[in-house]
This record gives sequence, C-alpha cells and structure tokens, in this order.
Amino acid sequence: MQELSIYHQEFVAHLQGFVTAKQPENLYNPIHYILNLGGKRLRPILTLMTADVFSDDYSEAFQAALAVEVFHNFSLVHDDIMDDAPLRRGKQTVHEKWDINTGILSGDAMLILAYQLFEYYEPSKFQQLAKLFSKTAIEVCEGQQYDIDFETRDNVSIDEYLKMITYKTAVLVGAAMKMGAIVANANCEDAQRIYDFGLNLGIAFQLQDDYLDAFGDPETFGKQVGGDIIENKKTYLYLKTLEFLDEKDRVQLRHLFAIQPNDPTDKIEQVKAYFISSGADTATQEAIEMYTEKAFGELEKLPIEESKKEFLRSFGNTLMKRTV
Amino acid sequence: MQELSIYHQEFVAHLQGFVTAKQPENLYNPIHYILNLGGKRLRPILTLMTADVFSDDYSEAFQAALAVEVFHNFSLVHDDIMDDAPLRRGKQTVHEKWDINTGILSGDAMLILAYQLFEYYEPSKFQQLAKLFSKTAIEVCEGQQYDIDFETRDNVSIDEYLKMITYKTAVLVGAAMKMGAIVANANCEDAQRIYDFGLNLGIAFQLQDDYLDAFGDPETFGKQVGGDIIENKKTYLYLKTLEFLDEKDRVQLRHLFAIQPNDPTDKIEQVKAYFISSGADTATQEAIEMYTEKAFGELEKLPIEESKKEFLRSFGNTLMKRTV
Repeated sequence: MQELSIYHQEFVAHLQGFVTAKQPENLYNPIHYILNLGGKRLRPILTLMTADVFSDDYSEAFQAALAVEVFHNFSLVHDDIMDDAPLRRGKQTVHEKWDINTGILSGDAMLILAYQLFEYYEPSKFQQLAKLFSKTAIEVCEGQQYDIDFETRDNVSIDEYLKMITYKTAVLVGAAMKMGAIVANANCEDAQRIYDFGLNLGIAFQLQDDYLDAFGDPETFGKQVGGDIIENKKTYLYLKTLEFLDEKDRVQLRHLFAIQPNDPTDKIEQVKAYFISSGADTATQEAIEMYTEKAFGELEKLPIEESKKEFLRSFGNTLMKRTV
Repeated sequence: MQELSIYHQEFVAHLQGFVTAKQPENLYNPIHYILNLGGKRLRPILTLMTADVFSDDYSEAFQAALAVEVFHNFSLVHDDIMDDAPLRRGKQTVHEKWDINTGILSGDAMLILAYQLFEYYEPSKFQQLAKLFSKTAIEVCEGQQYDIDFETRDNVSIDEYLKMITYKTAVLVGAAMKMGAIVANANCEDAQRIYDFGLNLGIAFQLQDDYLDAFGDPETFGKQVGGDIIENKKTYLYLKTLEFLDEKDRVQLRHLFAIQPNDPTDKIEQVKAYFISSGADTATQEAIEMYTEKAFGELEKLPIEESKKEFLRSFGNTLMKRTV
C-alpha cells in the first residue's frame, strides 16, 4: 500500500493526460476547468487504494478512477446549476463563468466521457464496471431529486432522509471502491463487502457533516458553522430532534425553520438548544458510530492481510477524524 | 421484412413496458411524459428494420431500439432548455411543464437509462453497443455545441456546416441502424456499410430540410416556410449562396441576415431571390442527390437479398419523398 499522497499525486498526473485541448473549445474548456479546480480527489483515490488492496498492480485502475472523478464532477456542474451556486472550491462555477447552457452541455459530455473511460477494459470487466456505474449514477440522480423534493415537504422521515443521503453521496463512495475491486479481479463477495464498507463509511461521513455543521469547531470545519440551520436544511439532526420533541416544542422548532432572519445568531442558538435538549445530538453521534462500526465490520470479513485491513481502518478513522 | 407501421406499433408496445411508475415521481414523470409525446419513432424503427435485414428475429433488437429512442428524447429535453423552446410536438416542453432543474435532472437520468438498456445483451455485444453509443452521444454533444457556436460566427464554412449537421443529426441515424446490425450478428464490414447508409441518408435528409424550409410546399412541409430565414439560420442554402455571390450582393445578403423585421415577408422574398439567382438552390439539390446516391451506393455493396436492398431503397426514397 502507498501513502495517500502518492495515490493523489499519481491520479492527478493521469488526469492531466486526459485533460488535453479538444474541439469544440466551448464544450471541452469547461470540462478541463472543473477537472482542474482541485479538491481532495477522495473517490478516485479510493478506487486506486482498493485495487491496491486486491492486486499487485493498481495502475490498471487509473481509467476507472478517472471515470469516477469525471462523473463526480459532472454531478457537481449540474447540481451547481440547480442550486444556483456561484462558487465551487472558491472559484466560479461553470455556469457562472460561462452560462447555463454551457453547464448543461459540458456536463452531459462528461457523463458520456466517464462511460468511455471504461472502454479500456475487456468486455466482461467493461460490462461489470458500466453496470455498476449506471446503477450508481441513476441512484445519484434519484438522491438529488429526493433532496429537491424534501425542501418543500414537511413530513420527511428519518428513513427517507437516510435513503436520500445514501443515494446522493454514499453509493458513489461504495462504487468507487467496488470498481477498484472489479479491476483487481476480486471475487463478487469481496467486491460487495468493500462496497458495503464504502457505503456505510459514506453514510457515517454525511451524518458527521450534518453534526459538525451545528457543533463543529469553526476553526477546522471549513464551512460556516450553522449554515444548514440558516438554510432551514432538514438534516438528520433536525429530523431526529423533531422526532424526540413534544408537540409544543416541535411547533416551535418548525416555526424557527420557517423564518430567515437577517441576523441568524439567535435562531442558530435556539435551534442548537433544541438539538441538545431533545437528545438528538447524542442520537446523531450514536448513528455515526453505528455506521462507522458497520463499515469496519465488513472489513473483518474480508480475506485480506491484516496490514491491509489496518490500512483501510486507519483511512476510515482519518476520514471520520476519529482519534482511536 | 415488415410494413413500417408494424415496427412502429411493436416498438410503441415495447416502450409502454418501459414507461412504468417509479419513485421519485418528479424524476420519472417527466421521462414518461416526453417518451409518450409520440413522434415518428424513426430511429428505433431503423434499428428494428436493420436487425430484420440481418437476422430472422428482430425481437432481440427492442432494447437497443429503446436505448436509441430514450437517448434521442434526452437530447430533445436538454436542447429545448438550451433553445428556450416552449413547445415540442405541439405540447409543452418538459422545462415549461415542470421547470429547468427538472429538465436537467430528468434528461441526465434518461442518458443513464439508455446505457442500462444495453445490459440485456451479453458482454461482447454490450461493449460494442455501448462503445458505438458513447461515440455517437459525444458527437451529438459536439454537434450541438458547433450549432450554438455558429450562431455568433460570421465565417462558417460549408465543410464546418456539414460536420455540424453530421454530428448533430446524421450520426444517430447511422448508429441506430448499426446497432440493429450488431444485435443481429452482422459482420463488422456490413455493420459499417449500413452505418454509412444511415449517415449519408441522414445528411441528405437534413439538407433537404434546409431546402424545403425555403422552397417547400406550405401545405405539406409541416413547419413555417421561411422559418430559417426569419431566424437568420446559417443553413446550407445560405452558406452556399454566400459562396456564390459577388462581394456586393454578399454584403447585401449579410445585411438581410442581421435584421429581424416585424413583417418578414419582404425579407423572405429577397433572401429566396438570392438563393435562386446565385444558383445555391440547384447546388443544394445536387448535394441532396449526391448524399442520397452515396447512401444507396453502400446498399449495393451489401451481401443481402435483393428484396431487402429494395426494401431499404424504398424506405430511403419514402424518407426523401422521392418519387423514383
């Protein structure tokens, strides 16, 4: 196994070979722009890392890793249009720098280019990868649609919320890892285990994101603490609080999530007080722990060397910023 | 071989099985809506027809035919957003009936669903179909981008225009037929010939559309005659006229294509006079004839029964409304 920074570095080098000048410029320049904005490259690194776990030569996994990253960026470009987001990684979004039509068409091309990257593999592997990719991509679309639907719904259940974050975020983490396993000729059972590892870690990570949005350290969280509360986002913390509160407080919390005061300081404090008094903060931490342990449980069953399990466990702990 | 109406009828029946209620509704309802708007179903019929030419059982081709139709409708949904079009087949476009975000996301899902339809085939055929599909889909995106670019360019060459209509329209006609050939186990050479037949017929059809827009019979053309002139569209007729005119008349025609009078009657008459006096009308008819003959030339080389060649030739003549 390698240092994470080595996978990162090698992936970016491979990406540069993909990002070359092509005609028509107005279609390909936005693709190169978004792919060069940087970012953690978490998903493609997972693909490489998993191929490294199951084989001696993870270089076979570069094309699959690239497909995952190109797909992820496709979804960012289209989601940013839908969310009317001006910035992505601190730079202008594609539809801001060019226009909405450019964002739509370049995004479409990226989705197709992602499929093309699998053509590197022989037919049977190609079909396995493309099938997993299509299933995942459709789930990501469904997750995005549920997310949009939930904005205007008052009765979102915890199960529905978990399904939404699973589809919108976690399935791609699982699929990125499973693709590495497929490329490395892992058997079906092991490939499914590593998928479940990624899936559950992805859910835990998203729940932790919800938690840190309210209770994170402003110094290290990276986003504005309380951002979800300001935007009235129905997160796990919020839905769990609604579940735990009595009717009177529930009405009060719903009211707080119907207003958008110019100075949100008071609102954030009041909502956080409900998160804590209801016990939802503890319940959320327990859920994070549960999904993380579920992920680690999948690792135990894998017939791989202990040092590789330790590597994946340590990666999981780094991701969850756990100091175990 | 069957009557065209039989392929049409059977295809629509197969389509109904695909269009079933799925969650989330806001993602799938727009997909069902656009797929049920009707239309000639030309592309999937071509897939079935070609499978029928090369095998005894064209029912194997239904999934590929459906993929072609779903892809075509994906491109309509996204193009209608880009063109801000209110109507499609006389009904509201998806982004008008719902909203732009719904159009983007439902379109994305359709592109993925099209790939999924190929999963019905065994790995080697799956890869052949998906490769051809990706190549075609990227070309359609590039064609759409060229079309957008040409709107604001003054120096579009005839070759560039031909490339644009080839990518935007003709490659999908060729691919629809080649997919039928692949499904029916035609050899590579024959599959390529039927692709070239469809490609050249597609180019001829698009050029004829340009021609009829100016010179068609208002009774039978279906669209407003002169519509391209009103919209200052740089069609083959227009570009050929620019090529043939002397400098003085060229300036005059460019001027006519820079204005948008409330009553376009005079403008249309003046532009059409240039189309005729320059000889571009004749040159366009010659080009249509040339691409049609090129298509028919591919048929001659195919090692299939004469009755099947006759069927395809007669189909081509019907499409081109030639009374040969």
